[in-house]
Amino acid sequence: MFDPVEKLKDFIRHPSVSADPAFKAGMNGAVAFTSDLLTSIGFKVEIINTDLHPIILASRGEDPAWPHVIVYGHYDVQPADPLNLWKSPAFEPEIRGNRIYGRGAADNKGPLMVHIASVARLLERRPDLPLRITFMIEGEEEMGSPSFPKFLEAYSDRLKTADLVYLSDTLLPREDQVVITCGLRGLVLCDVVVTGSKGDLHSGLHGGVLRNPIQALAELCASLHTPDGRVAIPGFYDDVMPVEPWEREEIRKLGSDPEEYRNFLGIPAFHTPPGYTPFEAVRVLPTLEFNGIGGGYQGEGTKTVIPSKAFVKISCRLVANQSPGKIRDLLYRTIRERMPSDVTFEIIDQHQGLPYVVVPPDRSNTPKEQSPVLADAFRAADTAIAEVFGKPPLYLREGGSVPIIADIKRVTGLDSVMMGLFLPEDNLHAPNESFNLDVMAKGIRASERILESIADRR
Amino acid sequence: MFDPVEKLKDFIRHPSVSADPAFKAGMNGAVAFTSDLLTSIGFKVEIINTDLHPIILASRGEDPAWPHVIVYGHYDVQPADPLNLWKSPAFEPEIRGNRIYGRGAADNKGPLMVHIASVARLLERRPDLPLRITFMIEGEEEMGSPSFPKFLEAYSDRLKTADLVYLSDTLLPREDQVVITCGLRGLVLCDVVVTGSKGDLHSGLHGGVLRNPIQALAELCASLHTPDGRVAIPGFYDDVMPVEPWEREEIRKLGSDPEEYRNFLGIPAFHTPPGYTPFEAVRVLPTLEFNGIGGGYQGEGTKTVIPSKAFVKISCRLVANQSPGKIRDLLYRTIRERMPSDVTFEIIDQHQGLPYVVVPPDRSNTPKEQSPVLADAFRAADTAIAEVFGKPPLYLREGGSVPIIADIKRVTGLDSVMMGLFLPEDNLHAPNESFNLDVMAKGIRASERILESIADRR
Repeated sequence: MFDPVEKLKDFIRHPSVSADPAFKAGMNGAVAFTSDLLTSIGFKVEIINTDLHPIILASRGEDPAWPHVIVYGHYDVQPADPLNLWKSPAFEPEIRGNRIYGRGAADNKGPLMVHIASVARLLERRPDLPLRITFMIEGEEEMGSPSFPKFLEAYSDRLKTADLVYLSDTLLPREDQVVITCGLRGLVLCDVVVTGSKGDLHSGLHGGVLRNPIQALAELCASLHTPDGRVAIPGFYDDVMPVEPWEREEIRKLGSDPEEYRNFLGIPAFHTPPGYTPFEAVRVLPTLEFNGIGGGYQGEGTKTVIPSKAFVKISCRLVANQSPGKIRDLLYRTIRERMPSDVTFEIIDQHQGLPYVVVPPDRSNTPKEQSPVLADAFRAADTAIAEVFGKPPLYLREGGSVPIIADIKRVTGLDSVMMGLFLPEDNLHAPNESFNLDVMAKGIRASERILESIADRR
Repeated sequence: MFDPVEKLKDFIRHPSVSADPAFKAGMNGAVAFTSDLLTSIGFKVEIINTDLHPIILASRGEDPAWPHVIVYGHYDVQPADPLNLWKSPAFEPEIRGNRIYGRGAADNKGPLMVHIASVARLLERRPDLPLRITFMIEGEEEMGSPSFPKFLEAYSDRLKTADLVYLSDTLLPREDQVVITCGLRGLVLCDVVVTGSKGDLHSGLHGGVLRNPIQALAELCASLHTPDGRVAIPGFYDDVMPVEPWEREEIRKLGSDPEEYRNFLGIPAFHTPPGYTPFEAVRVLPTLEFNGIGGGYQGEGTKTVIPSKAFVKISCRLVANQSPGKIRDLLYRTIRERMPSDVTFEIIDQHQGLPYVVVPPDRSNTPKEQSPVLADAFRAADTAIAEVFGKPPLYLREGGSVPIIADIKRVTGLDSVMMGLFLPEDNLHAPNESFNLDVMAKGIRASERILESIADRR
């Protein structure tokens, strides 16, 4: 009998911190543990080496006529520092109340164990289940998945035989309210470096004859938003997927309290474009943010220089239908047009990421064609979650970006069903990370039903 | 016979770096050297202790009916690093060509030696010269003269018996063109810190709901200038002393080439308020500059945060008749009015300094009443400089700030006659600092005549 909690404890005991080479043994241990576990429940396991940490690819079910689900997860975890803030050691799992504590408990070892356990139980009950399942478990998620795109390209022919990707690496806002994430924002990032004089100047001896690069940069930055909070770049909103009434209704049903959110952020007031609540704006609108700015003297006291250079780091979050390449071009053109000719400047490309959206079936007024297996998977999730958690899930786009989801779509054409399982209080990336054992149990039951429904769809 | 070059060599050999406690012996040595030298030429020397480095006060001439000139100078020097860039050791003076090399050669040991030598020669020739002379030589100039204002307050009764202050710690633009600095800009400095959320936020999870503090700061900074380069603060220019035709004529006579200046700065174009050349703007107009800006992530690559805080360091240079207190109030009121209510902010006072102006006699269309001795000192300088250097001096306001000059005026009521003696190529504050020996010889001759003329004015 597969005991998921004991297995999760074993998994947590391997300190698989991907970012720190000192944890090489923990990484190897986590790979061996996961491989052995999947082998033990009947999977054929391959360890795919990458430039850094291996990817585990494990499959069962040979019949190409069967539906094929790829389950994504990651075996690596965040660093556990600061260690002194942990009540029990980060890599010695401890159960207190209805929670299991340890680094990786919620991100992502617990949710991944939910899926492994659900598959184990399902196959124990129905060894001949007509479903192809492939676990695709990487070890670089906490580092930004640098090796993943190359792996996707190399294995795309095999991965394309699947019907969908299924994963749990997103948020469960409340214990009784599952959210299926159906959209993620894309990214365009760049630095802008403005140069005035060739060296820093004495602000007394030369102040008043030239444009300070901080001033030029401030003037540029100030020009990039309208007073009511929209991005002031011509064409920026042209391709934005309009928000539909069903989406606004889902967001409303989430029942978040604006005043509570405002207090959480610690701001005097929201600043959202007119016509959108904060909960809508963060999900369905693109943004332009300044992530950092610097120039001149930043120490204590004063130094009366006119700096030679100043820079700003800009990131745009994009929503469905926006093209990172097109937005980058609009942004760069705007910067070039607005920068005065008495300074020089450079735009430095940083990375880009595609936005992602999958519209659940039976919702949109303007539905797109969708794989029937994917549509059935959504319907199965809807039913199973309603039965197990007591309420149907909400389908929400999220403000964050998970580049691998858009990458999977780009390379293989596959959409993802993202069932959130970690709670806000699970302390991801922080000391005393934990995973709720009731959520774990419910997740296993729901996942078992979802996979069984997909198998039985014919 | 007083050999000024040998004396200057001895002076340079004392490594009197005021900012570095490791040079305590050098500081003591320079004080002893200066005191002995002044004693040897007939001065009564007092060493005035301060919280840090002593001030030397040395005087000759007892008759209160005689004119009284205070000669200001400083015995401290800048640090000599990076030492490996010096062709000869910084504190071992060496003569190459017509220059003496060594830290402090031009700033301020050489010019101070000019005055000591001129006095020595004058008194050798005329032991009964009817002139009271007080050398006031400090040791903290390169640190911003922190002890000086307290000293001024404590000794103001004695200092007030003087008619003027005479010094050489400003620039000689060309070997044949002496400039007498007759104005310096004042200062108002502050930091503005803007706070958005109480901590840094994930720009995906929360981007689009709040005003980024970098944006609020950029909008403020962008609002503080007009497109044509004026400061956009109501009332900012109200008290500015108008530039007079004679001043524009002096600036024109300076003969500086705009294209050469633009190349020196390394900028694509000047950015000066309409109606002023760069050489005028820097001397007669006030400014508002950003000396530094910072906020959020400033490292390599990207970090997609919405920072909690961003700050800017602002400095205003003020010209004659402007009040630092009033400008500060206007600036702070403008910041308070323009900052949006969806962020919080703090204005942190830094220091302030008064602007300074002394109008040479026989120039202004609207002359102010002036001490007759001061007026005669200017006339004497005009004649002596024309005779020795071949051209009369130019009378120019400068863009920099020398707070002690305004402090002397504020505390004692005394104006200063500032005769520049160091050349642009003297490498002040840099490796291979040097002082031109021809300038030194001419300076001594001119200074001897100036002091003699003041003595004989009756």
